[in-house]
Amino acid sequence: MLGAQGRAVHQCDRGWAPVFLDQEQSLSLMSVGFLLEKPDEAVVWRGPKKNALIKQFVSDVAWGELDYLVVDTPPGTSDEHMATVEALRPHQPLGALVVTTPQAVSVGDVRRELTFCRKTGLRVMGVVENMSGFTCPHCAECTSVFSRGGGEELAQLAGVPFLGSVPLDPELMRSLEEGHDFIQEFPGSPAFAALTSIAQKILDATPACLP
Amino acid sequence: MLGAQGRAVHQCDRGWAPVFLDQEQSLSLMSVGFLLEKPDEAVVWRGPKKNALIKQFVSDVAWGELDYLVVDTPPGTSDEHMATVEALRPHQPLGALVVTTPQAVSVGDVRRELTFCRKTGLRVMGVVENMSGFTCPHCAECTSVFSRGGGEELAQLAGVPFLGSVPLDPELMRSLEEGHDFIQEFPGSPAFAALTSIAQKILDATPACLP
Repeated sequence: MLGAQGRAVHQCDRGWAPVFLDQEQSLSLMSVGFLLEKPDEAVVWRGPKKNALIKQFVSDVAWGELDYLVVDTPPGTSDEHMATVEALRPHQPLGALVVTTPQAVSVGDVRRELTFCRKTGLRVMGVVENMSGFTCPHCAECTSVFSRGGGEELAQLAGVPFLGSVPLDPELMRSLEEGHDFIQEFPGSPAFAALTSIAQKILDATPACLP
Repeated sequence: MLGAQGRAVHQCDRGWAPVFLDQEQSLSLMSVGFLLEKPDEAVVWRGPKKNALIKQFVSDVAWGELDYLVVDTPPGTSDEHMATVEALRPHQPLGALVVTTPQAVSVGDVRRELTFCRKTGLRVMGVVENMSGFTCPHCAECTSVFSRGGGEELAQLAGVPFLGSVPLDPELMRSLEEGHDFIQEFPGSPAFAALTSIAQKILDATPACLP
């Protein structure tokens, strides 16, 4: 999605050098995908091996000075999530951004993730609803493909902020598919407006620790 | 989705009795969800505990005579998948039904799952593409929300059958959301036709071991 497939991770004095997306090094990445020899190699790893790598990704990568470290986890409440929370605890993470789709079966899963955050003492920064409705590019009518409003109800129920809804957007999909810069390509799209508003709410709510 | 939330699992002479959905006992279920005290309880389990439960779900449930046992796994190639393949190996499973969405980032994940099947000696029954396009209920125009054709390309690349595409269908979503019987409610919907055709292909390809 970021056009970084096939890039390699190098060893430097201070550990693994992450993959930089631009000359200004404003966005750096680390992923198990960079460590595979072939892109369709299966990562058939049990919990302990995954946990060890997650710890290394926090401690052994030469991240340098970061404004934000974003960890994108799989769904659920298992090894990856416990290892991530443990590895980040000494760095006092700002919290978890919890993403759901609108339908009841997804909201049910995410309720269990909110319970996980409470049990592990991780603050919940807020809930985002993804895939909320689709505006037809032919007739401009909006349809709730997967039901509607589940994210907002969940946030109210859990007493955490609801940060916004991101619609299904074929323009966003196309940018991701082709590894293009969505911000440059489709600044007028509905997903762009939704994502910008959510990002602004997160920035407004996070402590002013930046220089 | 099946209207079975809140149902409980009972102990019987031959092990755990699964949850039956109908009087004829034509569909029986087992899920960790039935073992939780509260529906939003988080299952914060590491690999070994999950592996043990998966084995129990195969060996300690009084399944009785089954025509088919369907195991719905999370995405990925980790503990759950290894434990499932190991637990089912003595029963000679028919194979894996691999589901992807059309976009490249999902197809990439699923390529790794096909590698996993090859490594573990699990036959691939075929690839299904889910969320393939959305037909607007207002103007009847079809839009490829998430790109198109990724599932079919993947099947060709891997040399396995392509079984079909299931469109995004708000009627299917509504039935699942409300725990209704989609087959009764919307027999004319596009997702119904797609799912029926896929099921028929699987039945045609499986050995005639039924009485």
